[in-house]
Amino acid sequence: MARKNAFYAQSGGVTATINTTACAVIETARKHRNRIGKVYAGKDGIIGALTEDLIDTSREPATAIRALRHTPGGAFGSCRYKLKGLDEGRAQYERLIEVFKAHDIGYFFYNGGNDSADTSHKVSQFAQALGYPLVCVGIPKTVDNDLALTDCCPGFGSVAKYVATSIREAGYDVASMARTSTRVFILEVMGRHAGWITAACGLAQDGPGEAPHILLFPEILFDEESFLARVSETIAKFGYCAVAVSEGLRRLDGKFLSESGLRDAFGHAQLGGVAPLIAQLVQDRLKQKYHWAVADYLQRSARHIASKTDALQSYAVGKAAVELAVKGVSGVMPIIVRKSSKPYRWAIGVANLKDIANKEKMMPRDFVTEDGFHITAKCRQYLEPLVQGEDYPPYRNGLPAYVKLKNAPVRKKLSTTFKI
Amino acid sequence: MARKNAFYAQSGGVTATINTTACAVIETARKHRNRIGKVYAGKDGIIGALTEDLIDTSREPATAIRALRHTPGGAFGSCRYKLKGLDEGRAQYERLIEVFKAHDIGYFFYNGGNDSADTSHKVSQFAQALGYPLVCVGIPKTVDNDLALTDCCPGFGSVAKYVATSIREAGYDVASMARTSTRVFILEVMGRHAGWITAACGLAQDGPGEAPHILLFPEILFDEESFLARVSETIAKFGYCAVAVSEGLRRLDGKFLSESGLRDAFGHAQLGGVAPLIAQLVQDRLKQKYHWAVADYLQRSARHIASKTDALQSYAVGKAAVELAVKGVSGVMPIIVRKSSKPYRWAIGVANLKDIANKEKMMPRDFVTEDGFHITAKCRQYLEPLVQGEDYPPYRNGLPAYVKLKNAPVRKKLSTTFKI
Repeated sequence: MARKNAFYAQSGGVTATINTTACAVIETARKHRNRIGKVYAGKDGIIGALTEDLIDTSREPATAIRALRHTPGGAFGSCRYKLKGLDEGRAQYERLIEVFKAHDIGYFFYNGGNDSADTSHKVSQFAQALGYPLVCVGIPKTVDNDLALTDCCPGFGSVAKYVATSIREAGYDVASMARTSTRVFILEVMGRHAGWITAACGLAQDGPGEAPHILLFPEILFDEESFLARVSETIAKFGYCAVAVSEGLRRLDGKFLSESGLRDAFGHAQLGGVAPLIAQLVQDRLKQKYHWAVADYLQRSARHIASKTDALQSYAVGKAAVELAVKGVSGVMPIIVRKSSKPYRWAIGVANLKDIANKEKMMPRDFVTEDGFHITAKCRQYLEPLVQGEDYPPYRNGLPAYVKLKNAPVRKKLSTTFKI
Repeated sequence: MARKNAFYAQSGGVTATINTTACAVIETARKHRNRIGKVYAGKDGIIGALTEDLIDTSREPATAIRALRHTPGGAFGSCRYKLKGLDEGRAQYERLIEVFKAHDIGYFFYNGGNDSADTSHKVSQFAQALGYPLVCVGIPKTVDNDLALTDCCPGFGSVAKYVATSIREAGYDVASMARTSTRVFILEVMGRHAGWITAACGLAQDGPGEAPHILLFPEILFDEESFLARVSETIAKFGYCAVAVSEGLRRLDGKFLSESGLRDAFGHAQLGGVAPLIAQLVQDRLKQKYHWAVADYLQRSARHIASKTDALQSYAVGKAAVELAVKGVSGVMPIIVRKSSKPYRWAIGVANLKDIANKEKMMPRDFVTEDGFHITAKCRQYLEPLVQGEDYPPYRNGLPAYVKLKNAPVRKKLSTTFKI
């Protein structure tokens, strides 16, 4: 294939290390100048491709691109915008190809979760049907760790390290105050359907009396009575009780405890606020003083306590994506393959996009203890390597020094517009 | 004075660095073995003195005491328990002296906020009136930064660094998603009456478009209309709006937005949950998608991102307290004195406990912009030095390695008990 430009877009909720992947894509592309011309990033993700709002990353100096490695958020903007099916959404796919053609784009890198793998797969199919030469490579990213086939998801290790550290620290706090003050502490974490982030909190417990004492997974329906009994037992034994709860906790009837009624562009319910509900329950039924925290976006943007393993993997998938692309391999996604847990060894593998698209990987039942309230040794063995190593950002004036790119726009070539 | 044992207790809400002070007290006392015998810590604070539940810190190896330097929470337990006035609480003070006498205690170190300075002062007066030789030294600690006379409070710099880092990181996240997802992000922080922690969030803003865009201080009554107007303007200008709000935000009628109805042992209202209220307001009135986080205990236990300046000062006040005590100086508290802001230079000074007791230092009005929504350059100059420097704990298995002491009890000598 002749030298072509590349298009890179970030999709869905951002993570502490999605920019690490962006850094890898751009740095690696710059090493393949014979195959890849410029890397254009989509402003606000795939929307940028539809509206022809492209960002010329070649205008950024190497130092700025390097600084992406340690910068949270999505440097070019991301979006929650799902392309329709190939039939009803034909205009969208045609527009993408129109824009790609206008800007001589021959590589499509889409960095996201399972929705994005689906989109990449469809774009790949459509381009092929049209006979437009486009190498499509998906790149995994999601804090939820719920992608199929890959052993873990870039972005997850860092949120895991953040939540485990946070509940350990809060546990030390509550333990010291329990005699006269708070006895029950509740931390709400993300993970709508899959309990991986909740499970990661469990890593903080290195002894039976240590926090967290109870984990409430989205996969296990919430049984109020057995929960309250366990809280009481825990207080009786250890003086206090620290709980980590998934935003996606569901009642015995299957409904989310905290559904707010809002839905996002994918039709997902907007959740939030299950911690105060659990706290109220503890207060009403057990008359115990509580405190609660909702980590929300703090957990997925906490680059200051990123996992080194995660940062390395986030970089590796970006690098591998470009290396696959320049070899002409299309319709795939680089994934993380675990070679062994102790010592931890991993490598990059390759999966087909269609095998990843729209699948959600839940926690296996044998990762959760029989009573449903904690993680098993098997789960701990899986999770522990993912939080290993620190990867601190540089600091300026006492705060992490993150980069804002210039994000210089690429001059539009089309006279047509596209309505989002 | 002949060689005497020392009593050390932690009081009130713990911080990321109160154990740093404990480390300093014990390490410094061990260097003055000619004057100080053993350091006994109160189990669960001053309650331990009343119930004769003392912890023998001499049973801990030097390595464990050193590890306290980087461990959050209160290693010996703290409490929210306020001694009564000298007249109505006479039995409490008599009991303290009875226990101190039984264990040959000649030094009283009380590590806390303004309530604790008051207690230390009363214990000092009572011992003097009784003719019992007791050197009483208060040691400052509070995340709220609201103690009189001291330039800043040990514990505050670390929470300041945590909240500023957190809202900067979340700001990067929201900025990248704003086109199709969340436009308004609200972070709730501590600080019941004084807005120092809210102000610290302001440090994260290093340009007009950067997060946080709006700070809601407890000192400034909440005007819904001007707030909503400012949110709308900010979104129009920058695409999104990040807000930091104090748990102690009050309505125009002076009532807390979030009062839960519960009160702690000091009679303070238990607050929490103002962020979701503000979020609901934004949703109802502006129809903007929101997310909110409540940092709660995470902020005051986040030893993983402690300020080095704060860690050094937390150690320095503990060391100074012991050095004052062995010189026989009583009824005082070591404080932080600022020599200059740029470059930042500070020294340890000494204040009288009675001048610190029960006073709250609010944010000066000229630290808040005229519109009430942000910090001034003057405030920034005050705050910036306090978050300087990183002081990372060691890690084990990917998580901070904090110490749990043996906390060996001192054998009781009294046949009497005391009911709390």
